[in-house]
Amino acid sequence: MLYENLHITNNGELMIADTSTLDLTKQYGTPLYVMDKQQIIKNIKMYKEAITTFDNAQILYASKACDFLAMFQLCKQENIGVDVVSIGELYTAIKANIPVEHIYYHGNSKTYQELEYAIQNKVGCIVIDAIEEIHMIQEIASQYNYIQKALLRITPNIDPHTFDEVKTGVLDCKFGFAIGTELIDTAIQEIQKSSNIDFVGFHCHIGSQIFEYDAYQKTMDIMLQFVKQMQETYQIHTKELNIGGGFGIPYTNEDSTICITTLFNQLASQLQQFCQTHSIEIPKILIEPGRSIVANSGITLYTINGVKQIPNARNYVNIDGGMTDNPRYALYKSKYTIVCANKMHQPHDSMYTIAGHCCESGDLIAKDVYLPQNLQRNDTLAVLTTGAYNYSMSNNYNRFTKPAVIWVDGNKHQIVVHKETLDDLLRNDVTIKEA
Amino acid sequence: MLYENLHITNNGELMIADTSTLDLTKQYGTPLYVMDKQQIIKNIKMYKEAITTFDNAQILYASKACDFLAMFQLCKQENIGVDVVSIGELYTAIKANIPVEHIYYHGNSKTYQELEYAIQNKVGCIVIDAIEEIHMIQEIASQYNYIQKALLRITPNIDPHTFDEVKTGVLDCKFGFAIGTELIDTAIQEIQKSSNIDFVGFHCHIGSQIFEYDAYQKTMDIMLQFVKQMQETYQIHTKELNIGGGFGIPYTNEDSTICITTLFNQLASQLQQFCQTHSIEIPKILIEPGRSIVANSGITLYTINGVKQIPNARNYVNIDGGMTDNPRYALYKSKYTIVCANKMHQPHDSMYTIAGHCCESGDLIAKDVYLPQNLQRNDTLAVLTTGAYNYSMSNNYNRFTKPAVIWVDGNKHQIVVHKETLDDLLRNDVTIKEA
Repeated sequence: MLYENLHITNNGELMIADTSTLDLTKQYGTPLYVMDKQQIIKNIKMYKEAITTFDNAQILYASKACDFLAMFQLCKQENIGVDVVSIGELYTAIKANIPVEHIYYHGNSKTYQELEYAIQNKVGCIVIDAIEEIHMIQEIASQYNYIQKALLRITPNIDPHTFDEVKTGVLDCKFGFAIGTELIDTAIQEIQKSSNIDFVGFHCHIGSQIFEYDAYQKTMDIMLQFVKQMQETYQIHTKELNIGGGFGIPYTNEDSTICITTLFNQLASQLQQFCQTHSIEIPKILIEPGRSIVANSGITLYTINGVKQIPNARNYVNIDGGMTDNPRYALYKSKYTIVCANKMHQPHDSMYTIAGHCCESGDLIAKDVYLPQNLQRNDTLAVLTTGAYNYSMSNNYNRFTKPAVIWVDGNKHQIVVHKETLDDLLRNDVTIKEA
Repeated sequence: MLYENLHITNNGELMIADTSTLDLTKQYGTPLYVMDKQQIIKNIKMYKEAITTFDNAQILYASKACDFLAMFQLCKQENIGVDVVSIGELYTAIKANIPVEHIYYHGNSKTYQELEYAIQNKVGCIVIDAIEEIHMIQEIASQYNYIQKALLRITPNIDPHTFDEVKTGVLDCKFGFAIGTELIDTAIQEIQKSSNIDFVGFHCHIGSQIFEYDAYQKTMDIMLQFVKQMQETYQIHTKELNIGGGFGIPYTNEDSTICITTLFNQLASQLQQFCQTHSIEIPKILIEPGRSIVANSGITLYTINGVKQIPNARNYVNIDGGMTDNPRYALYKSKYTIVCANKMHQPHDSMYTIAGHCCESGDLIAKDVYLPQNLQRNDTLAVLTTGAYNYSMSNNYNRFTKPAVIWVDGNKHQIVVHKETLDDLLRNDVTIKEA
């Protein structure tokens, strides 16, 4: 099995932690998001341990991966910070009592209202991503007689091996200020004129699902050279260097892995050497894992509605979910490991394509995956590694309601997000008097 | 301009019908969906007029294109039927008092619960899409002592020129029963055994955004040959033939158009000739336009947060919306016509890429479109042709709230969907006691 927290009972049923997936589907129906809380905690603890290799470092959970209230509460409990990209995420983080000084506000396109909301709520740090933000932050912070801590997002021009849609560190990208362009000088000069901005350093993020150690090493090298250059040119002493996240996690047995401890050890010694050689004070390192904290904790359970075997084409399995609860195949043709939760002892050796319930041919969950030969209606499928970017990207296309999210903890479980109701769908709809 | 309901004032501001887009943004903020109600009505009336060329035909609005309550109310007022694909859409249609006999229930993957809900609510017709559905419908209808009207969805094996994601009539497709396969015979035989199913005919739908008259003609020909074959082999007298929709509409000036009146005239005479030649009673024709009823009624208004000019790369315009309110670029690289609503008199001759607000490089609305040279923060962009598959595909990725939908009617307007609130985002989130 892909993950050590998944087990098979003697009668061939899938367990997550010590909880039966089939018991959960009986109790809550499907589709159903299930996440193993102890796996999330384990992932967080791994990161907290790994960063001790740096003299001074902090983990910020990239909350967009999974951003409901309970997840922020868990970050609070585990005493890690978070990065947020909207008022909605910030509002949720505050509801979860995350100390505001541990909240970093991101995003390539921030509105005046968003920045004002962030500053009103004394968000720990704003990661500046555009010239206009500098002016807006200065204007708002000065109105509130406040000094706003900020980082500047830099594009290191690194091209890792991943999907185009999730590359964020290349030159031609909506994010950040590219090294070597005049835009950076303009930004620095504007920031230095802004008396209500406490400018502490730089941020970068090269993309997601990255497995290459040397992509991070190159990034660290480029960023440190840049830090040095900024010190020489603008007398900027970088106090914080945020190197982003994007650490790859395996979705299938064919995928690579990256060892975070090894990577951080490499980066820490690279940092120390560089700073020593160039007499630069070692900045605090911020790291923003998102997917890798939650993805492998989660599975999604579906019920099969039917199997359609089309000669000379494909065998389709129709399930009761789809791009409404998991749009990642539709968006990126993402690959998943899928198992039949009630037939785990049967060989998974027949090829099927998993079709979602939306009226759209592109609504698939996986193409050509292996499952038992005798799949039929009412069998339960478990799609693994759906803890990240599944609930957070869910939607109501075709007016389907969003599924519930259940957290299991050993043999106990609790609802952390209720299933949407039909009335939720209509809550904001206006009944017009005369159509 | 792309559409005749859009105008420009003397001072270069965009009007939709007789309503100022800038007044709307001042009153409601952005992002904002705006739809011209009279344009929707005009589109519906065009279809109602065009189908009179058939002896007996009915329009069913494919509600997934835009499925909030007011839209169903408008269908009720204009006396057209609807097709739905979920309990959510059916529930909304019933709330809007659409007569249930004018509701057709679609979908490649229907659950027992969905079919039971449809039958309990006496939905007019169920479009059968899998063998398992025949058994479920029979079981449920017999329990309720009810005779359920049904069509069988057929795959005519037509490959129109459109995106792969929206082709629905090819052999290798999750929808329907492909002509020439044994599956159809199995389905017919199962249906004929089902005493609680009133089997009235066949359905097909070849895809969406189709501009080729001959794709529809070929489909009609294949379906009529099939109807004839079914009559000869199984003594099935097809009372209803549902030929689906997918009629293309232009998003840019480069796009084609298709004249519905011409198309329907061609299809009607083809139908009449075939039935006369082969002594077949002319079936009632059902047609399911979705996008073409609402798309050109809608625009989305955004505010520019900033403009980032990256030398040797691209000029990015950051807006306050993105794949959360319009995921069609992220999903299909869809093209749009975009204008600057407050600078309509300025030449749109400088190339920009419109970047959404999500933390994802793939979150663009358009790549390399032409807009005025001096775009800046607080300018308003209008993305045209967003009446279909924008609100209905909207989502809360990055915890952004869904925008409001405004209907304009001449110089009046009304809210038809309220903007989501922060509390809406947290409504189903559970506060856990001990994280």
